Amino acid sequence: MNEPASDWSEAEAELMRATYRSLLEHGYADLSVSRIADELGKSKASIYYHYDSKEALLTDFLGFAVDRFEAAVAAETGDDPSATLDDVLDRLLPRTLEEEHRQVQTVILELRTRALTKPAFREAATEMDDRLAATVREAVETGIEDGVFDDTDAEAVAEHVLATANGAMYARATTDREAAAATVRDSLEAYLDETLGRR
Amino acid sequence: MNEPASDWSEAEAELMRATYRSLLEHGYADLSVSRIADELGKSKASIYYHYDSKEALLTDFLGFAVDRFEAAVAAETGDDPSATLDDVLDRLLPRTLEEEHRQVQTVILELRTRALTKPAFREAATEMDDRLAATVREAVETGIEDGVFDDTDAEAVAEHVLATANGAMYARATTDREAAAATVRDSLEAYLDETLGRR
Repeated sequence: MNEPASDWSEAEAELMRATYRSLLEHGYADLSVSRIADELGKSKASIYYHYDSKEALLTDFLGFAVDRFEAAVAAETGDDPSATLDDVLDRLLPRTLEEEHRQVQTVILELRTRALTKPAFREAATEMDDRLAATVREAVETGIEDGVFDDTDAEAVAEHVLATANGAMYARATTDREAAAATVRDSLEAYLDETLGRR
Repeated sequence: MNEPASDWSEAEAELMRATYRSLLEHGYADLSVSRIADELGKSKASIYYHYDSKEALLTDFLGFAVDRFEAAVAAETGDDPSATLDDVLDRLLPRTLEEEHRQVQTVILELRTRALTKPAFREAATEMDDRLAATVREAVETGIEDGVFDDTDAEAVAEHVLATANGAMYARATTDREAAAATVRDSLEAYLDETLGRR
């Protein structure tokens, strides 16, 4: 479904997985290319062979995270548009958030927040939201074409879902209002049921 | 409406306004107590008399920002629940964002993002969202009591509106997807019209 996953060579994918483990272990603030190299079991030079800077590596990591997200949604739901929407919500806005998932969301938000001041992160965050919105929009369009959803403005639904999920994710990571996230999840599902005529 | 505004002495309010101007001028990264003191035209010692640390001052600043927000909404809309909801959306999620407003939102997000790692900011962000959600919830409750809105779950509506507005604000500050913000604003109004039975 959606865009084909980018082509990551096995060496690149290994580097991205090492970056992921380093981010979980050290957090964004204490991340360094040295630590990623340690995690990878290779030299710093081998990383700088692929990337000019930590920033370049981390902006690519955001793209890798979206690729993994899309591949996981596609593997789980195939072409079923309603299941796709539910799975996207389960991943972005689960009713309860497991510890590793919480750490991943925090790391993604820390990286995205660099976009407030760094153009390279802004570009990566823009692409990330473009792709997430496209995943939702295409599922809505497919459901309308298949006659399982009411005819509606798929782009508006996609942007609404993305903004609400992003906002709840952001609030969950920056406040102690955990119950609010579950309330928003329920409300967002009710909005989709109503707007798409889902039962 | 809502909570009574906190009681800021004139000296405290002056300090908060100087903090606001310093944040707009220097951004969060280059902010210092010295710069706030310069802006205030007083000594650093006079600031440390009130606050132990820059962090304590800035978490209070988030409370000051919410006080100003609530006072502005109340002054603009009085007790009209539908006007209150529209005014909240105009302030959080305007269709086009003026430059100063954009800077203010960026500064607030930079401060809130400290909550990812700093408990004091997390507490301030929690209180901020509690109060914003209460503003929306109380407007919805008033509208239901007055018979101008359909009977509905006011808390769910409030959390939905807040998450969507926060998400769109966050995306606007961290991406180049400016058109998406206007799309979300339209969709959020349509959601309110539908859910509350507004014409």
